[in-house]
Amino acid sequence: MPRLREARTMVLIGLLSDFGLKDAYVAQMKAVILSLSPSAAIVDISHEIARHNVHEGMFVLASAAPYFPSGTIFLAVVDPEVGGPRRSLLLETGKSKFVGPDNGILALAAEKEGVVRAYHLTESMYFAGEISPTFHGRDIFAHVIGHLANGISPILMGQPVSDYVRLKISEARLEGGAIRGKAAHIDCFGNVVTSIHPELLERGGFKFGERLKIRINGKMRDILLCRTYSDVASGELLATVGGHGLLELAVNQGDAAKLTGVQVGTPIIIQRAGLSV
Amino acid sequence: MPRLREARTMVLIGLLSDFGLKDAYVAQMKAVILSLSPSAAIVDISHEIARHNVHEGMFVLASAAPYFPSGTIFLAVVDPEVGGPRRSLLLETGKSKFVGPDNGILALAAEKEGVVRAYHLTESMYFAGEISPTFHGRDIFAHVIGHLANGISPILMGQPVSDYVRLKISEARLEGGAIRGKAAHIDCFGNVVTSIHPELLERGGFKFGERLKIRINGKMRDILLCRTYSDVASGELLATVGGHGLLELAVNQGDAAKLTGVQVGTPIIIQRAGLSV
Amino acid sequence: MPRLREARTMVLIGLLSDFGLKDAYVAQMKAVILSLSPSAAIVDISHEIARHNVHEGMFVLASAAPYFPSGTIFLAVVDPEVGGPRRSLLLETGKSKFVGPDNGILALAAEKEGVVRAYHLTESMYFAGEISPTFHGRDIFAHVIGHLANGISPILMGQPVSDYVRLKISEARLEGGAIRGKAAHIDCFGNVVTSIHPELLERGGFKFGERLKIRINGKMRDILLCRTYSDVASGELLATVGGHGLLELAVNQGDAAKLTGVQVGTPIIIQRAGLSV
Repeated sequence: MPRLREARTMVLIGLLSDFGLKDAYVAQMKAVILSLSPSAAIVDISHEIARHNVHEGMFVLASAAPYFPSGTIFLAVVDPEVGGPRRSLLLETGKSKFVGPDNGILALAAEKEGVVRAYHLTESMYFAGEISPTFHGRDIFAHVIGHLANGISPILMGQPVSDYVRLKISEARLEGGAIRGKAAHIDCFGNVVTSIHPELLERGGFKFGERLKIRINGKMRDILLCRTYSDVASGELLATVGGHGLLELAVNQGDAAKLTGVQVGTPIIIQRAGLSV
Repeated sequence: MPRLREARTMVLIGLLSDFGLKDAYVAQMKAVILSLSPSAAIVDISHEIARHNVHEGMFVLASAAPYFPSGTIFLAVVDPEVGGPRRSLLLETGKSKFVGPDNGILALAAEKEGVVRAYHLTESMYFAGEISPTFHGRDIFAHVIGHLANGISPILMGQPVSDYVRLKISEARLEGGAIRGKAAHIDCFGNVVTSIHPELLERGGFKFGERLKIRINGKMRDILLCRTYSDVASGELLATVGGHGLLELAVNQGDAAKLTGVQVGTPIIIQRAGLSV
Repeated sequence: MPRLREARTMVLIGLLSDFGLKDAYVAQMKAVILSLSPSAAIVDISHEIARHNVHEGMFVLASAAPYFPSGTIFLAVVDPEVGGPRRSLLLETGKSKFVGPDNGILALAAEKEGVVRAYHLTESMYFAGEISPTFHGRDIFAHVIGHLANGISPILMGQPVSDYVRLKISEARLEGGAIRGKAAHIDCFGNVVTSIHPELLERGGFKFGERLKIRINGKMRDILLCRTYSDVASGELLATVGGHGLLELAVNQGDAAKLTGVQVGTPIIIQRAGLSV
């Protein structure tokens, strides 16, 4: 059956967790997946999500997922309430399947693609024989992933639900010529990804090459809205539309988060140089 | 020869070292393996073992190996005595093959599966043409792994031995109603995996939901024996049977090793709340 | 067409960057490559290159590449000038293809193999539809890699060039019985890889087992030239020819860079014990 074989060699698994790379936890999950589905190809998205930081896991998963091919199965495990009443969740879109705890980590990535069906994973025949209450990543989710990679339908694995958890996402608005947003993510370079979409910049009449005023933690700064990091001198703060497709504060060859003291959630207000906020 | 082909696509390699992920060392080993056996699938177990910590490597390897499918070949290189008189070792079980320095790193994982044959690797035709005395991981072990993945029998690669190195493992005992064990591993969350098997808890009549007394570094604490982290308040110390299948001390959304000052090897004594140790 | 199929399953991609493993950046590049070429096998060389340190990336890439099989395609992205005038480069050798920014990161590895053709990558039909000016790794280079893995010829992707960037490499010379070199790389163990090739040691009449005098930062030390780390006592400084095939300063089970204060570029002078420098 060449069709089936082809299908199986195509199954890509994207993996995200806060387990770090020192312990055996990630390898245990991969070993379970490959025991069930030996031809699956696993790509690590990140295992360095800050411990228990569901919001950060949600952001990084939603950043990675759009670049994966159709048919990818994602497993995301940042799971501070493992073993408690939180449900095990599967979200199916027209393009992908997302598996993980029902704590909001999956919803942002899946809803970008459009959730078609959602399941509370209840069918223990697709889990490990014994389930550690502290490690569902290995004993429930990795087993589910292996079976999904083998073509088992999600409908066999649980009960349809519609009330899965969605986390509040930082938004941004244009108001009196100023855009009010927030820091949505800080990457490992110290670049500050904001919640401000370039469409808002356009609606506000902001242009590349223009100097903006930006207010962070009560301090007002002049800053160039530019195309890329090297458009300003080394060490200088800049604003650009970064690789996430969002307004980003960066320092050319430096660390914008450290320079500005911004943390995730810090309000960020930008306005034209001539206006007062 | 479809059988042979099938066999080759199934070969899974589990890799562990203390080489870190910054330098080219891990990639050199993988490149050697894939040069010899292009269809091998390599899974990283950990490359963040504390430098030269053979005991930690042994523990993490033994934690990961049971989840890998039958036929997996493991390479574990924490090798402070590389280039000296320590032997190169291959342990064969009914399920897996383990390759690495003969310093104890392999024995715990392999003996869990039952060692069937052990070999001192001596046949240089299965090694690199030139061998760096400081990097047997690349020039001896990775070459051996590549040849094993291609189906070369271990018997061609060396001399049978029976006196391979076994490290002393922390054990635990029930004595006068108290269980005396040790901290066997501290994971990257600060969870303290002890040497206490749940069977001992059962024999001692300890029950989930019960409050225990636990003595660490001379200090006595009350602690709940519970099913999972979230059974106690955030920040509270607890005891549970964790993902390693051993009694584990943890702090719900916190760091038990930091809270208690436990290090690997620290004695841990637990008893019923009513008794005195 | 069994030949074509075989060829495709053999394509190995070696990946290097300074992106770290916390964010989605590396996964985005892998997802792009695997979307275009699902059967490519990707091996991480390193993503922990010090941020913007093109020299370190160059050294680690050149350390890894010789161990990869013929036909490997390398992508190396340490790219502080992304989005600026620096060109996108492809170097083709008789053995491999190297892709990345034209800032020197590729040249050392490629010139070891012998550069046969070099291209400025200009053909945007092999890039993403939209290109982030801050992330060519994903939107230009990963797309190029995917197409190369599918067998597209480099000649279709750009313009031949010969003036690609080469970084100055630390060299060493024998002068009046002394060898004057530099620290070329410091690995994550603190081993100091020097620019001194063992051929110079031979020409200078230095022999394994001999005590040398070594001058670093104005301080003269006695040091044994030996075969491997464990030839000296634990904690003792030594010189050996390490896994990079270059003279290396190391401390048995310790950190030579910390002990000696050496940084990349620090001059290192060695001479016979009887001579004065």
